[in-house]
Formats: sequence, structure tokens, C-alpha cells
Amino acid sequence: MTDKNKAIPTAILGASGYTGAELVRILASHPAAELKVLTAERRAGKEVAEVHPHLGGLDLPLLTATADADLSGVAAVFACLPHGASQEIIAALPDHLKIIDLSADFRLADTQTYAQWYGRDHGAPELQQEAVYGLSEVAREAVKTARLVANPGCYPTASLLPLVPLLKAGLIDSDGIIIDAKSGVSGAGRALKESNLFCEVSESFAAYGVAAHRHAPEIEQGLSVAAGSPVGATFTPHLVPMNRGIFATIYVRLAGGADADGLRSELAAFYGDAPFVQVLEEGALPATRHVRGSNACHMSVFDDRRPGGAILLSVIDNLVKGASGQAVQNFNLMFGLDETAGLGGLALAP
Amino acid sequence: MTDKNKAIPTAILGASGYTGAELVRILASHPAAELKVLTAERRAGKEVAEVHPHLGGLDLPLLTATADADLSGVAAVFACLPHGASQEIIAALPDHLKIIDLSADFRLADTQTYAQWYGRDHGAPELQQEAVYGLSEVAREAVKTARLVANPGCYPTASLLPLVPLLKAGLIDSDGIIIDAKSGVSGAGRALKESNLFCEVSESFAAYGVAAHRHAPEIEQGLSVAAGSPVGATFTPHLVPMNRGIFATIYVRLAGGADADGLRSELAAFYGDAPFVQVLEEGALPATRHVRGSNACHMSVFDDRRPGGAILLSVIDNLVKGASGQAVQNFNLMFGLDETAGLGGLALAP
Amino acid sequence: MTDKNKAIPTAILGASGYTGAELVRILASHPAAELKVLTAERRAGKEVAEVHPHLGGLDLPLLTATADADLSGVAAVFACLPHGASQEIIAALPDHLKIIDLSADFRLADTQTYAQWYGRDHGAPELQQEAVYGLSEVAREAVKTARLVANPGCYPTASLLPLVPLLKAGLIDSDGIIIDAKSGVSGAGRALKESNLFCEVSESFAAYGVAAHRHAPEIEQGLSVAAGSPVGATFTPHLVPMNRGIFATIYVRLAGGADADGLRSELAAFYGDAPFVQVLEEGALPATRHVRGSNACHMSVFDDRRPGGAILLSVIDNLVKGASGQAVQNFNLMFGLDETAGLGGLALAP
Amino acid sequence: MTDKNKAIPTAILGASGYTGAELVRILASHPAAELKVLTAERRAGKEVAEVHPHLGGLDLPLLTATADADLSGVAAVFACLPHGASQEIIAALPDHLKIIDLSADFRLADTQTYAQWYGRDHGAPELQQEAVYGLSEVAREAVKTARLVANPGCYPTASLLPLVPLLKAGLIDSDGIIIDAKSGVSGAGRALKESNLFCEVSESFAAYGVAAHRHAPEIEQGLSVAAGSPVGATFTPHLVPMNRGIFATIYVRLAGGADADGLRSELAAFYGDAPFVQVLEEGALPATRHVRGSNACHMSVFDDRRPGGAILLSVIDNLVKGASGQAVQNFNLMFGLDETAGLGGLALAP
Repeated sequence: MTDKNKAIPTAILGASGYTGAELVRILASHPAAELKVLTAERRAGKEVAEVHPHLGGLDLPLLTATADADLSGVAAVFACLPHGASQEIIAALPDHLKIIDLSADFRLADTQTYAQWYGRDHGAPELQQEAVYGLSEVAREAVKTARLVANPGCYPTASLLPLVPLLKAGLIDSDGIIIDAKSGVSGAGRALKESNLFCEVSESFAAYGVAAHRHAPEIEQGLSVAAGSPVGATFTPHLVPMNRGIFATIYVRLAGGADADGLRSELAAFYGDAPFVQVLEEGALPATRHVRGSNACHMSVFDDRRPGGAILLSVIDNLVKGASGQAVQNFNLMFGLDETAGLGGLALAP
Repeated sequence: MTDKNKAIPTAILGASGYTGAELVRILASHPAAELKVLTAERRAGKEVAEVHPHLGGLDLPLLTATADADLSGVAAVFACLPHGASQEIIAALPDHLKIIDLSADFRLADTQTYAQWYGRDHGAPELQQEAVYGLSEVAREAVKTARLVANPGCYPTASLLPLVPLLKAGLIDSDGIIIDAKSGVSGAGRALKESNLFCEVSESFAAYGVAAHRHAPEIEQGLSVAAGSPVGATFTPHLVPMNRGIFATIYVRLAGGADADGLRSELAAFYGDAPFVQVLEEGALPATRHVRGSNACHMSVFDDRRPGGAILLSVIDNLVKGASGQAVQNFNLMFGLDETAGLGGLALAP
Repeated sequence: MTDKNKAIPTAILGASGYTGAELVRILASHPAAELKVLTAERRAGKEVAEVHPHLGGLDLPLLTATADADLSGVAAVFACLPHGASQEIIAALPDHLKIIDLSADFRLADTQTYAQWYGRDHGAPELQQEAVYGLSEVAREAVKTARLVANPGCYPTASLLPLVPLLKAGLIDSDGIIIDAKSGVSGAGRALKESNLFCEVSESFAAYGVAAHRHAPEIEQGLSVAAGSPVGATFTPHLVPMNRGIFATIYVRLAGGADADGLRSELAAFYGDAPFVQVLEEGALPATRHVRGSNACHMSVFDDRRPGGAILLSVIDNLVKGASGQAVQNFNLMFGLDETAGLGGLALAP
Repeated sequence: MTDKNKAIPTAILGASGYTGAELVRILASHPAAELKVLTAERRAGKEVAEVHPHLGGLDLPLLTATADADLSGVAAVFACLPHGASQEIIAALPDHLKIIDLSADFRLADTQTYAQWYGRDHGAPELQQEAVYGLSEVAREAVKTARLVANPGCYPTASLLPLVPLLKAGLIDSDGIIIDAKSGVSGAGRALKESNLFCEVSESFAAYGVAAHRHAPEIEQGLSVAAGSPVGATFTPHLVPMNRGIFATIYVRLAGGADADGLRSELAAFYGDAPFVQVLEEGALPATRHVRGSNACHMSVFDDRRPGGAILLSVIDNLVKGASGQAVQNFNLMFGLDETAGLGGLALAP
């Protein structure tokens, strides 16, 4: 169905990790993207199928070192590079490229906040000002005209999608928001850390980065933009013994006489046209397996038993809507394609 | 080491489920208990090892129907019977028995609250008044003289152990307590329900019973007793794809100028003599694998990034400290034994 | 891309289980099939998304009872009915329908063997004679003209794909074949059995049906057809604590001077045109995660350390190539479509 | 119960890995061993509980570097050092020590075979001659008088326990033995390798080391000693997404008119006095969860459907009977203690 003559030549920088692999998986059957360049430092020279055996049988270029990549014939770049390295490599890219950066490097608009949380000055502060924070459903119009999109983190995506519309509508207090979030292990990437070993994770559940996770300022930035004033939030991430999925349990205080029904209606209205967001009916419970492998976000709203509060539940696949799927969604918007192009895959369960 | 002449003859009613099996596992090497009667309705006549193949090689009585059990020579009864059935069977037991009931039947002191949450009137309201709620560390003295102990639920145990001392000491607000709890699948027992199937649970994470779980009133009862006035709490249980373990993430508001250090000191002092509760040092993170198979509770305290709040983390093994281990701990107290008798087993990791 | 005017109206009988859900997942984006009828006995009247929440957002007919299904406008039927029930329901279907039966009812050509292993006489022996055993790559031509295809079992698919070409070519002994097979839990379906509970499976590995599994005669039938004479095999199935995937480790004795290289060449030649079978290079190791969610079969060949033997490894996703994916592959062949239509989805890993 | 005045002062060299942790877990409650020295190179100076948080609350010495360890007051050494390093460190130990080596360094009596499989000459060939291969049930008498015990590997333990008695009794052919073995991930230790990452293992099943695993010559050595003549075997290891457990499925050819009943009787007789080996009744199926955390080995025997063959199934916990538990069993034998001392712990399930 793809007219390869009209295809958009595309590069993935950093294709050996899990988000890189997901981009290959999604883009391989994308109707308008053509994979021309795939980079990976330690694996340069290898076939993709050697590094990602589940992606065998595709007609793909060999992996190459990023420094050796010829991007002259490329129009779109997905960058899956390590935090810190990404900003410098992206700053050096030719101007004609449209770029979706999956690292955290361009997510925080305030470079001081960046410096505080990442322990170093930002290396490309002007480019930072140009970058659009690409929470697709919320920033759709800005993404359409962006040259550089900072693709949101997985926790911020799962948290902001239910919260932003409610803050905008003034239905919840901007104070006292608590986000108790749980993630599958692929959220930590493919790095060789003891905490990622099977035997350290399986048959266990644990919190990490309590009151100290780098996604906290990113979430607060998104909440503040939505509320129009500074919003803080309590954010606690946890590790679940599963490969994929984020589940956010969010405790909010109601404002302006709202209740769970009102919140649900607002969310349903806000996402009425959004192809990937599904606001569940009263009483329905989301689960990460319902969105595994898909670009969907499912959310539901419950009245808290204690008056004046509500509980929001939100699930995504951290590697898809929380990373590579949303990146392709942003790519679609940036190139004037159908927002769902290449993203029609249904969830895989069980 | 056990002098069988001095052993306490013991019965387990309902030995075919997971809590029954844990009782057998623990009591089989208990220095003072002797297993004399084991009941199981559908499995009556079978060997324990047929129903629980991991408990082979023990010298145990055959399983028998509860109605056929001869309790005349027995001194202690552990009841692992279904909610609802337990109260009637226990009410009919001879007076000379000391009883630890692992069902929910005698946990709620207020029989109206019981009726509201369990959908039926209590069948033994007088016995209910006599029952002692056996959160061992909190109710140690009352348990010592009790004839009937209502063994706490797993979520209440994990939640109340960190909260009760802080409420008693007035270091946290009694208002606005949020308990976000996560449990392994064995918490749901061995029942044949679709939601307990491997393929419905594995590689997924989900909430259930949002704002409607029966452990909520049990938790609120414990908090209210500790505070000396009615306390409500928001409680959200979640299901983790693992066999064992409960992890409670608890959000509290500080009172009286306290901070995380102060809370940690209070907990350390309160549990200074408690052999099973470990208050972790600043920054240390609990994980359910650290207590798997043991009767331990690990807890830690963090300052919330947002001023005025703290985060409490607490882990137990739901089948041990959350059920059968605490039941044996109560048994030890009731019979004047060392509180740790039979409970010295260390956690099993990985 | 689909011209719905040319779409093939399709029914799924028994859509509430895992193979039914996989059919919906695959056919929802199939370019030529249109889902017109979906049946489910206990769930009749419900939306598909209620029974399979991961399949939300699709425009599908309500579930209906099989007896109430209107098949007059339907051209193709996928039957995911219980063994035993399937044969009678299929025997009563109108003649104009092409049928792919995913049960075991029409797999054994010899109705005496059927009676021996399934404990009852076959209810539609004439239809049995008409049925084509649909191991797609092996029976491609016969499937193209079949009216009724017996879709192979998951273990037979994983076992026969590597063995059939080697027996046909006379490169291995027909005697002494040992198949040690391992399956994810979804192979047992969604039935409420204690052995399918999370806590009975997770963190454990076990054999079942040793020397007594119903897939044994089905495998032997396929081997015998390939060899042109009766072939027996030793077959041991095992249960792996994972949702999906079959891994077959097959021990064979070499014939005619062959070695692993020769076997590998023969397989590569036999499957040269097969879009879903990938014969791995020397030394490469298959894993079930490499084919999770895809219709692929990966296989590799090793010399046994002991002279005269070889080891074949083969992996499939039991719900896709081992059930619903192969069923759609057969549907494609039966209706003259591209063999890969609707089956382009890549594997999902991690 | 322990008389510490009579305790055996004990050292663990290499206490930071999984087998070291298991030794601490078991020996902490051993009635006759006293942990005096614990070494760990990178973790020297730390508390055991920092490295193994599940082992908190014990009164243990700090971890120290092996080179700094004072072994003058020690009587028994457990060595959990890397293969290759172990032989040199052990060769330099004082003569008064009794040593149980959990590495592979002293397992292969033939130093040429060692050199071939481990790629280097043996560094202590004389000590090798002195070492006793400590498969406890088979070599009980030799272990009792040994100064240096080579503790068997996990796969060899699971494989040899069912095979050795049958070869000795001449009930099975020494030719054509096929061992298809499956292991939990902890068998690979705590090393930082990509193949041990949660996301590479979970929801997947794979073979590794096909026809090339270093446990193959160790198994063949054990079989040859039992048969009295050289025996080869086909051995294929697989990785199961679980923490603990080994399951061996063993295909044998019968000799001398035996059948499964005869094999089962022989095994039951051979292990009649063995406290840790359980020969299951006809038809009973072992599972790794039945022995998780215990020193037990469960085995069963089935007739193959194809005449002349039998299938042996055997399960152990790789970290207990396959490593640290058997090491303590050997320690007990070497010091004249009850063989079960410290090893009474029952399996933990689920």
C-alpha cells in the first residue's frame, strides 16, 4: 500500500535498545516512512536481526555508528540516545531534518530545572527553547509545525493525559495531587544494572526514586502549563515484575462541585476525537494488559470513599504510548499524515 | 528439641488453601505445637502431601471433614474457613479451645459495619465482642489473655503497623491518609476465579475493589482505635503478577512539626522490642522479596518533596505476617511461648 | 485499504476464549475479511470489549449464542468450540460455508484413533474424511481447495514443521524421535482449572500428560504421512510460567550420512518460499520471545555431541502460528488471497 | 539450642552472590555452625544486610576481602568463588581446614577434560586428585572422611540422582541417555549479563549451550563411574522464566527386561534411607515449586509409550540441593553431624 516513491526517508539514532526496537517494529509497516539509517555504537556493522532477533526477515540497512551515519537523504530523525549525549548530537544535525527526541534532554523548558535534576548545564539551551513538548493529544497543533519534538517520558504521559484536561477545566484542585505510579521493567531500558536482573525483580515489588525521580519535574511542568500557575505533585514510581506497562493511580481533590461523573464527562469530551485515548465507563477497571503493545491509553475515574476526592486510573504501554508509539504519532503530525498511520496494531493479550 | 509430651495439640480447620498450607509449613517445625487434626471438606480422606505436594515427607494426620473432626484432645484451633462460614463453626466449638480465626468474621468490632460490608447480619455477635483483634505488636497484652483472636487481614497488617504508632504519638494528621497497596496473587486464595488465572494476571498490573474493598473498614477501625477518634482513609488495592507479598505506599500529612526523621525515630522506638518489625535506615528501600516467606515487616519513611507530607513504605509476606505467620505469633502469645517460636525462618530470595 | 464491498463475510464461533480473541485481533485488520458474526454461549449479548478489554474501540457485532447465529450471509467460519462439541455443530452448518476448525475434532484421519484418545466415537466420520489437515506449509495445495480444514494443534505445529521435511528427504531415522516440548499457559485455554491458577504456575516448571497427551497421535499421524510408513514418537509436554510460546527440543538420529549442516540446508530449501518459517543460521538459538504475537516459526539445527544424532529446536507462538494465525493463513489459502494477508504483524519483545 | 561453645567456626568465601546468600540463610540457623568469616571482594567492609537485604537482623561479621580474611580460628570453609580463581585460593589455604568448594574447579577428576572444557590447565592438579565429588547420597562415605569436597553442579545433581542407581543396577542402557534440563535464572548467578536481564528472560523460554555446556562432562563422569565404563550423554540446558528450580526430563532405554515399575522400585530402595530424596508414586508428577527453598529432590518414573524406553523426571532447587544446601549436607557429613542438620526447612509454595 505504501508508495515508496513518496515515502519519508527516516533515521533512528540509537536503535539497539528497547525504544529503538519498538520504532523499528512500528515503522517497518508504516505506510509512509522508509527506514534508511539505523545507528548503534557498540553494535555497528551488525544486522538488526542480530541485536533484535524478533525483528528478523525485514529488509533493513545495517547498523552503523552515529558518527558515520549519512543523513543527507533523510528527512526525519528519531533519536533514542542516552540523556546528556542526545542534546549535543541533535544540536549538530543539519537544519533540514525534523527530529523527535526520545531522551529527556529537551523536555524541561526551564534549563535551570534541567541543571538541577540532571546535574549539568544544558548543552543546547537555544534549541531547548525551540523544542515542542510532544504530548500529542495536548499539543497536537504545536507538534504539527515543530521541527524538534521532545517526546514525553512514560510516567509523565500516563500521568498528564488524565490530569491536564481536569486542571484546564478547573475541576480538580491544583494542590495535593498524588501520583502513585507502577512500571514494567523495560522502562529502565536495556542497561546492565543489577536492579534490572531477572532474579532481583521477579516475584518482587518495590518503590524506587521516592520523592526524587527525574520525571517529577517533567510532570509538574505539564501540570503547571495546564493550570496556568505552578503546580507541585507527589510522585512515587514503583517497579512491577513484568516487561511492559505503566499504571498510574492518581489521587486528586475535587474543585467547583465536581464529582467522578463530571470528571469522566470532561475527559470523554476532551478526548472525543483522540483515536488512542479511551475513557472507560463507570466502574470499568483498566489493566496494563489491555494496552500491551498498542498506542492506547485507557483511563477511568472513581469517587473516593472519602468526600471531596476522586481517584484517576490510567494505563499505557511504556514502550509504545510512553515512548516509540507516541514518537511515531508525533512524526505523523509533523509530516501531515493521518495521526494513526502505522499505529493501528491492537493490544496483545494474554 | 520439642518435648512432645509438652506439646500443644493443635487443629487446623480448612487446611487445603494457601493459608492452611502455610500453617502446616510453620507448625510442622514449631517446638511446642503438635498437629493433631487437619480438616478440608472436598479433600477429606486425603494425605496433606496430595493436596500440597511441597509438604511431603511429614508425619501428619489425614485430612478429615470439619464436621467429623475430633477436637476433644485439642487445645488450639486455627480456623482458615471461608468468611461467613467461620463464625458459625467457631461459635459451636467447645469452650476449652483457644482459637485463632484467620477469616474476616471477627475482625470488625461493630456488627453493623460488618453487616454493611459483608451483606449479612453477624451470626455470633456476642462472640464478636469477646474477640481480640490480633495485630500482635499492637495488641500483644490483650492477645496473651484472649480465648478468640481475630487474625488481621493482610492489607490491614501492612497498613496499620506503620500508621498506628504515628497516630498514637500524634505525629501525623488523622485526616487525608491515603494507602496505595499492592498484593501478590495468593492474597486472593486458591479459588477458581477467572481473575486468578495465570494468563489474566501475568505481565499485567491492575487495581481492583477501588474505593470498595472490605479491608477498608478494617483499616479504618485500627486507625480510629489508635487515634482515639474516627479516622477515614483512602485505600486502593492492586494486583501484582507475583505469588506473595504486600507493598503499601502510604501518604500522610505531618502534624505537630514532625518530619520523616521524627517519624522514623518514633517507629524505631515503638518497635524496639518487636522481633519481626524492622524500621529501615534513612534512604533504604523495602521490597517484597526481602520478606518473602518470613514473618518480617520492613518499613521506611521518606519526606515528601512537597512540604508537610511524608511517605511511608511497608512490606510483608501476605501469607506469613499477613496471615499464617501472624496467626502463629498470636498462638505463641496466647500460650505463653516465646513470641518467635517456630517463626525463625529467614526470607527466601531470589 | 480494504474494499469492504469485496470483503469476505466471516464468523467466529466461540469468540470468548483466547484463540477467539486472537482471531478477532488478527481479522480486525485483515484486508479482505469482515467480521459479521461472533458467538459465545455464556457471554451472548455482550460487547466483545467487555469480554476482551484489550480489543476495545473496534466496530464489531455483539456476541450471540451459536444457536442464534445467522450464517446466511457468511462465507467463512472459524470454529473455536470445545473438542467434541465442534464436530456436531460443524456437521450441521450449511454447505456453502468454508470452515476452519480450531478444535481437535477433525485432526485425526483415523476415527478409531480418535475414539481411543478422546473416549468417544466420532460424530461426523464422513466429514472427517473430507477434512484437510491444515499444516499450511506442508499441505498448501490441499488447503487451497478444501471446504473444511482441521487446524493443527500447537504442539504438532511446532514439532512437525522441522520434522516433516527431514523425514520426507530421508535424512533422519523414523525411529527414536523424541520431542521434549514446553508451552506457555495460554495453551490450556481460559478454563477455570486449579492447574491454570497463577499461584500454581508462577515460579514453577512441570511436566504434564507424560506419555499420554492427545497431541501425541496427531504428531505421529503427521510424521507417518511424511515418512510414508508408521512412525512413533516420544512426546513430553511441559508447562512454562509464561503466557505464550511453544519451544520444542527434538532429538533425532541421522540417516544416510547426514549431519546438522545437511539438515539445515534441507530445511532452508524446503521453506525457501515460506513467508513465516525462518531457518536460523548455524549456532543461532531460537527463543519464544522472538515470535511472540507473530505467525513466525523459527527453527535451528545442532549436531549432537554424541555421534549420529542431531537436535532440532523450534519455536512458535501457540496462539498465533499454533492456532489463530495459522487458521487465518489457511483462510487466506482457501480464498485465494495472499498467504500473508493480515499476518504481517511483527513479534512483540520484550 | 546450639551450644556455641561447641560450634564449628565457619567461613564463606564469596558471600555476595546467590549461593553465598543461601549459605548464610541456611547456616544462620544451623545448630552447629558459627559464621565467623564472610568475604566479598567488591563489597568488603559492608554489612551482609546491605548486600542481601532479605538477611537483615542477623548478628554476623562484616564482609571482608578474601585476602584479608583471618582463617586461623576457622575449621570449615565454603568457597563460592569464580571458576578458575577458586583452585588457587583453595590451594593456598591452611591444611587444618575442611573445605567445600562450590565452584567447578575440582569436579572433573581428569585434568585433561578440565583443560578442554575450561580452556586452561588446572592450577592445582594434586589437590584435584584428593578432592571428593560430593554428590551426598552417592558418595556419603567418601565425603565423611574428605578434607576437600567438590560440590556438584546443579544440573549434574538433578541428572545423576535418578540415573546413578539405575546404571549401577544395570536396569538401563548406558547408551542413548538424553537429558533435557530446564533451569531457573539464578543458576546463572548474579552476573551482569544481558541474557540475565528481566526483559530478556521474562515471558520467554530458550535453550542455551546446546551440545556445549560445561556440565556435560561432569554428568558423563558421574554416569561413567556408576556404570563402570565410559558413558556419554546428550545434555541440553534451557532457561525458564523463574528464579529457582531445575527440572530434568531424562529419556533412557531399558535394559535387562526392566520397566518403569522396576526402575521406581530400585530408586525407592536405593534412597530408602536418604532424607532428602523422595521417589514419587506411580503417576505423580514433580514440579519445581514442590522443592523451592528446600534441600529435597523429587523424582518419578514413567514408561515411555514407545516400547523399551522410560522417562525419568527429577526436580531440585538449584540454589539448595543444587548448590548451598548440598554443600551444608556435605559439611554435616564431614563433621560427623546429622546429615539433615540445618536443612529441615520445608519448601515454600506458592
